[in-house]
Amino acid sequence: MSVVVYEVGPRDGLQNEPASVPLVAKIAFVDALSDAGLPIIEVGSFVSAARVPAMADSGDVFAGIRRRSGTRYAALVPNLAGLDRAVAAKADLIAVFAAASETFSQRNINHTIAESLDIHGGVVASARAAGLGARGYLSTAFGCPFEGDVPIPRVVQLTQQLLDLGVYEVAISDTIGVAHPDQVRRVLDALLAVAPVDKLAVHFHDTRGMAIANVVAALQMGVRTIDSSAGGLGGCPYAPGATGNLATEDLLYLLSGFGYATGVTAPRVADASLALEPVLGHPLPSRALQAEAAARRRAGVT
Amino acid sequence: MSVVVYEVGPRDGLQNEPASVPLVAKIAFVDALSDAGLPIIEVGSFVSAARVPAMADSGDVFAGIRRRSGTRYAALVPNLAGLDRAVAAKADLIAVFAAASETFSQRNINHTIAESLDIHGGVVASARAAGLGARGYLSTAFGCPFEGDVPIPRVVQLTQQLLDLGVYEVAISDTIGVAHPDQVRRVLDALLAVAPVDKLAVHFHDTRGMAIANVVAALQMGVRTIDSSAGGLGGCPYAPGATGNLATEDLLYLLSGFGYATGVTAPRVADASLALEPVLGHPLPSRALQAEAAARRRAGVT
Repeated sequence: MSVVVYEVGPRDGLQNEPASVPLVAKIAFVDALSDAGLPIIEVGSFVSAARVPAMADSGDVFAGIRRRSGTRYAALVPNLAGLDRAVAAKADLIAVFAAASETFSQRNINHTIAESLDIHGGVVASARAAGLGARGYLSTAFGCPFEGDVPIPRVVQLTQQLLDLGVYEVAISDTIGVAHPDQVRRVLDALLAVAPVDKLAVHFHDTRGMAIANVVAALQMGVRTIDSSAGGLGGCPYAPGATGNLATEDLLYLLSGFGYATGVTAPRVADASLALEPVLGHPLPSRALQAEAAARRRAGVT
Repeated sequence: MSVVVYEVGPRDGLQNEPASVPLVAKIAFVDALSDAGLPIIEVGSFVSAARVPAMADSGDVFAGIRRRSGTRYAALVPNLAGLDRAVAAKADLIAVFAAASETFSQRNINHTIAESLDIHGGVVASARAAGLGARGYLSTAFGCPFEGDVPIPRVVQLTQQLLDLGVYEVAISDTIGVAHPDQVRRVLDALLAVAPVDKLAVHFHDTRGMAIANVVAALQMGVRTIDSSAGGLGGCPYAPGATGNLATEDLLYLLSGFGYATGVTAPRVADASLALEPVLGHPLPSRALQAEAAARRRAGVT
């Protein structure tokens, strides 16, 4: 009984941090996550440096990290130019992203959903031809900041379209952290009518404190790939509009209690997160991380 | 389909805050929670002022608050002297507390478990004679900071003993925030063999981020009284040994999504919490509260 923890901290986490993180700290972070035994790490993003400056050095991060044999290293790519950079960086996997909300798609990536699927089709085909696996993200699958509710049939249809493009899985993503466990159950129930469960992953943000309960709902529906971010990186809980990711440490505490094997060593993930705190200049929001940090202080272990 | 939210912020929350909170702010906090429609508010504690200085003015808080007709006001009492003060304060309910761990009992309240049950027996009988309902807390029911694991049969036996004393319900309490949803299921499954579900409440701390998932597990087992603390008051997540309570705002988001009626107006609970932040000098840890606060800032509502 095992679960794949898909670590998004270096990409979805750092991308949303206000602090500028030096290249050497990013490389050390990914290396520490590799040492923790994480099976997949999303290292960076080959998007426009002008649009996402925090990811401008993703090529250098890929060039600097140690590759652990049990870990695959992924990159987010928006188009064929990004794919070229991912191939040059020797990424093992790429990820493409589509939105379930038309307004979000147009405001976030400046394409209609249909346009973005056209682009992704070419990217996924080329990636597979180059020997790279491709994952799809379906963002705003549980709600949109502009449109509010997102109809479940649309989520089902877009997931099907992404799978038809040849992605090996779709991460059903709660971009703004509004998902509720009962909604997770309903969305997955509808998706399982068109897709086998091993083609589905879930990606939650803990904006309203529901992320762990949403994971439980997804596990109960059979999903076995869960995205998380070391330390809950990706939004200080006290910042305006904070949208911190589900924390890897909290996820591991949950999975361990259910008896799922992950191959990940939780205290080593905490090491990775704690080393980043002084770089970011603030504590990370993961509850389990902070409980671990408090226990280390009491024990006199720094 | 309804759930009783048992608000513990003014007692279990404020008792664990390092800042000294002025009487007038405590009264305003309880009044704001009454305005939110909470059905039960634990206002304070009639314990030794030397042991718990933060609760020394509980009598004055009771004297200063407005009583809303739909709300009952509870006080924690350790002994008959405390009960006298609760009666004088016109509390509607009292709560007594026993530990499921012998070491915790002796270190925390300086009595063996058996001694504490003897004392509670007298307190509960006298309370009922005075027309006050009495609740029991069973602390460390999911783990002890000194003994580690707590055997489930001991939790069952002590819950039975508390019920036999005449309490109307027992709050099965995760004092140190180690409980896991699967453990919640197993503990409640054992308890339901000896007690009807309407005699059971649950009390979780979010120390490792599991509180909301633990609530889902308890709801699935039929429990319909859940303790929570406005704002997650009772431990800054970044303080050493932090043990913040489950946040009322997060709980309400969860319950609303499942369609449970509570009679509580969530934005008014947020008002109560946000008014307390400047008094405490730090943001409160509730994720849903901070999401609400961010939305208010964006909308220009202060």
